Amino acid sequence: MLNTVRPTPYERAELRIAADEILSKIVELAMSRGIACRPMLVGSVSRSTWLAGDHDLDIFLAVPEDADLAEALELARSVAPVHEEKYAEHAYIHAKINGFDVDLVPCYLLKDASRIKSAVDRTPFHTKYVSERVKGLEDEVLLLKQFMKGIGVYGSELKVGGFSGYLSELLVLRYGSFPVVLECASSWRPGETIDLEAHSTTSHQDPLIVVDPVDPNRNVAAALTLNRMFQFTAAARCFLKEPDTTFFFPPDQKPISDEDLLKQIQERGSTLLLLDFEAPPMVEDVIFPQLRKAEESIRAMFKRNGFSVLRSDVDCHPVNGITRARMLFELDVWELPRIIRRQGPPIWEAEHLSRFLSSHPKPSSGPYIEDGRAIVEIQRKYTRASDLLEKEVGTLSLGRHLTMQVQKGHDIYVGSELVQVKDQGFRTFMAGYLVARFRMC
Amino acid sequence: MLNTVRPTPYERAELRIAADEILSKIVELAMSRGIACRPMLVGSVSRSTWLAGDHDLDIFLAVPEDADLAEALELARSVAPVHEEKYAEHAYIHAKINGFDVDLVPCYLLKDASRIKSAVDRTPFHTKYVSERVKGLEDEVLLLKQFMKGIGVYGSELKVGGFSGYLSELLVLRYGSFPVVLECASSWRPGETIDLEAHSTTSHQDPLIVVDPVDPNRNVAAALTLNRMFQFTAAARCFLKEPDTTFFFPPDQKPISDEDLLKQIQERGSTLLLLDFEAPPMVEDVIFPQLRKAEESIRAMFKRNGFSVLRSDVDCHPVNGITRARMLFELDVWELPRIIRRQGPPIWEAEHLSRFLSSHPKPSSGPYIEDGRAIVEIQRKYTRASDLLEKEVGTLSLGRHLTMQVQKGHDIYVGSELVQVKDQGFRTFMAGYLVARFRMC
Repeated sequence: MLNTVRPTPYERAELRIAADEILSKIVELAMSRGIACRPMLVGSVSRSTWLAGDHDLDIFLAVPEDADLAEALELARSVAPVHEEKYAEHAYIHAKINGFDVDLVPCYLLKDASRIKSAVDRTPFHTKYVSERVKGLEDEVLLLKQFMKGIGVYGSELKVGGFSGYLSELLVLRYGSFPVVLECASSWRPGETIDLEAHSTTSHQDPLIVVDPVDPNRNVAAALTLNRMFQFTAAARCFLKEPDTTFFFPPDQKPISDEDLLKQIQERGSTLLLLDFEAPPMVEDVIFPQLRKAEESIRAMFKRNGFSVLRSDVDCHPVNGITRARMLFELDVWELPRIIRRQGPPIWEAEHLSRFLSSHPKPSSGPYIEDGRAIVEIQRKYTRASDLLEKEVGTLSLGRHLTMQVQKGHDIYVGSELVQVKDQGFRTFMAGYLVARFRMC
Repeated sequence: MLNTVRPTPYERAELRIAADEILSKIVELAMSRGIACRPMLVGSVSRSTWLAGDHDLDIFLAVPEDADLAEALELARSVAPVHEEKYAEHAYIHAKINGFDVDLVPCYLLKDASRIKSAVDRTPFHTKYVSERVKGLEDEVLLLKQFMKGIGVYGSELKVGGFSGYLSELLVLRYGSFPVVLECASSWRPGETIDLEAHSTTSHQDPLIVVDPVDPNRNVAAALTLNRMFQFTAAARCFLKEPDTTFFFPPDQKPISDEDLLKQIQERGSTLLLLDFEAPPMVEDVIFPQLRKAEESIRAMFKRNGFSVLRSDVDCHPVNGITRARMLFELDVWELPRIIRRQGPPIWEAEHLSRFLSSHPKPSSGPYIEDGRAIVEIQRKYTRASDLLEKEVGTLSLGRHLTMQVQKGHDIYVGSELVQVKDQGFRTFMAGYLVARFRMC
C-alpha cells in the first residue's frame, strides 16, 4: 500500500529540482527589481506529505507587511510569462512550469499568525508548524490522505465539504499514527474537539472542532460537514474490522448505460426529474453552494404543492467544453388529484370564516366542518410535479447567477427521458446517485 | 312555516285519545294483577312539542324503588300482545298500537333525580321540568327542532351526535324564543356553558355544557359533537342574515346516477375505495361507534404505509332487507414507488447502526448519510393503497363484531368500480359525500 501512495525517490528529486529552480528565479528577479520578496515552498510538497503523482507546487511570494501585494503579483507574472490569473481572496497566478502545475501566490510576511490580512497569509505558519513536527510521520499522513480520498471525504472545497490536507496532518500529529486516527475517529460524536496547543479562545458550533495551532480563534475543520465527518467515522470502523485495499483505491464509478438506467427507473418506480442548464462561469466553490440552495428552494416548492421528494442531488460537469449544471429530484409523490383540501378558521371566528368562505366561492366540495374548522375542497393548480417545475422554475428565486442561467435556457427531463442525456459526466453522476453506498458496518 | 311544523288539532286529539286509552289499559291491568305501577306519558307528546307527523308515544311504566322492573316489563307485554322486545340499559317493549309507534318502558318511581338507577328513570323528571315551564313556548320549540332537523343536527343518537329534543327545549327555556336561540348560538365558542338552575357541581370537558336542571352532575349536551355544535352555529348565523324556508325543509338528497358518479370520480382525480360488508345485527348506536373506530384504524394503516387519505366516511343502509356497512376512503396519495426510505440511527451510535444495517442487508440504494443518520432505500411491500386494503383488511383489528363480519365476506370497490354498487342507500350517501356542503356564510 505504502509503495503506491509514497512518491518514488525519482519523483521527489524531480520535484525538488523544479521547486528550487522556481524559487531561485523569484529571488533573482526580486533582487534585480529591488523588491523585498521572500519566496516560500508551502503545501504538502514542502513537508513531504504529498500523494504520489499528486504534486502541485504551491509557492508563496511573501512581501513585508507595509509593501504592496501588487508588486509580488507582477513578479509572479514575470516568473511564468505564460500563465492564468486566478482569484481567491486575492489574485494569484497559475502556470505550467517544467511540466508541473504551479500556483504562485502573493502574501504578506508576518511575525504572528493572529495578525493576518487574508487567509493565504496563514499558510506559511501552517507549513512551519507541520514541518517542524511531522518528521517520521509522513507515511502515516500519506495513508490517511489516501484513505480519505478513497472513501470520498478528502478535500475542503465546498463541493466535497471534507477534510483538508492540513486537517489530516493535524489528526496524525494529534493521534500519532494512521490506525490510531481511525480508532479514535470510530468513536467521534458531533462536537468532538481537538486542541493540540490547548489554546482555544472561541467556542465553535461545528460538528468537528480542530483548533488551529497557529490561530486559537480558528477551527481548521470548519468546512467539514456533519455527513462527511461521519462518513469517515463509519468507514474507519469498517476498515478496522476488515481492512481492505479497496478503501484506498475503490473501483472507478462507471457511467450507467441506457439499458441499466431504464431498468433502474422502472424498478424504483419513483419519478426522476432532471433540470439541466449551463452553469454560470464561476469556480465550483461559488457554484456549489448556489446549486445546493437552489436544490432546497425547489424541494420546498414541491413540498408546498403537496409533492414529496425522496432524494435529490446536484452536480456540474463539462459537456463538449461547456459546464452544465444538473439538478436531480427523485419524487415518491409526483401526481396528485385535481381536488385539494383547504383548511379554514374555526367556525367560532365569524369574521375569519366569512373572509375564508368569500375567497373560495365555488368549492368542489364543502364547506364542511372538521375539528371545528371549515374545510373546502377546491381545484389544485398543478397535479404533476413535472408541470409545476416546468411552469414555475423560471419564476423561482434561485440566486442571481442561477436564475439568469435558467432563464437563458434549460431542459427538463422526466422519468425515462433521462436516457436522452448521454454525456459521461451525467451518466457517472447518475450511477453514483443510484447506488449511493457508503462504507459502513 | 309554523303551520307546517305545528300538529293539527285533529292530530293532537287523535294522539291524546290513543295515549289515554293505553294509559287506562295499563292502570286496569296493573290493578287486576295487584301491581303498583303508575303509567306516565313522557317525551315531546306529553308537553306538546312534537313535530307534526313525528308522533311516537313514549309511555313509562313506573314502579316503586323496591319493586321488580320485570313485573313492569311483563305488564308492558300484556298491554301489546304483538310487540318487539328492545334493549337499551334495560329491556323495553316497542309496539304498534292503533297505528301509532309506542315505546313501553319500565322504570323506577323516584322522589329525587339524583338517586336514579338507570338513565330512563330520569325521563319523568325531565317531563315534569319542561311541562311546568314550556307553556306558551311550544311553537318556539317546534321551530327550533325543525330547524335543527333541516340542517342535519337533530338527534342525540351516535350516528348524528346532534341535539336531543330535551336539549332543544332547554335552549328555548334559557333564551326565550327561537330567534334568540339562533342569535346566542351564533357567538358560541367551545366550552359554552348553560346552567338554568345555577346548580352545577361538576366540570365537563364537552364542547357545549348544558347542566341538567334535574341533575347537577349531568351535561344534557354530552352527546353533541364539536362539529354538530358548530354546524348549528354556522347555520344560525346564515339564517339570521338571510332567512329561508330551505333551512327547515331542505330539498331531498337525490341518489347519484351512474353518469354523475363517474364524472365526479374523473373530475376529482382522487381514488375512492369502498369497503362493503354485512353490518353486524345490532342497533345503529352500537354499530356507528365501531364503524368510526374501524375507519380510524384503516386511515392509520394507510398513513403508516405512506398513503394519504383526503377524506373518509361510513354509513349503514338496508339493501334487499340486509343492512350493509359501507366504509368509504378517498385517497390523494394512493400509489407509491417500489422503493421506500428507512431512516436508521445516527452513525455515532455504533451498536444501533450495526443492528440497523444487518436488518437491511441488501438495500436498493444506500446506506448513505443524511443529517448524521444512516439511510437505506429498500423495497416497499404495497405500492397501491387498494392492494394494502385488500390484503390486510382481514388481519386488522376492527373491533370484534366488525372483524367477524369482514372475515365472513366483504367486497372492495376501487375508483370507477363504485358504479357497480347500485342500491339507493349507497347512492344517496355518495351524493351527500361528494357535495358535503353545510350552510355557512
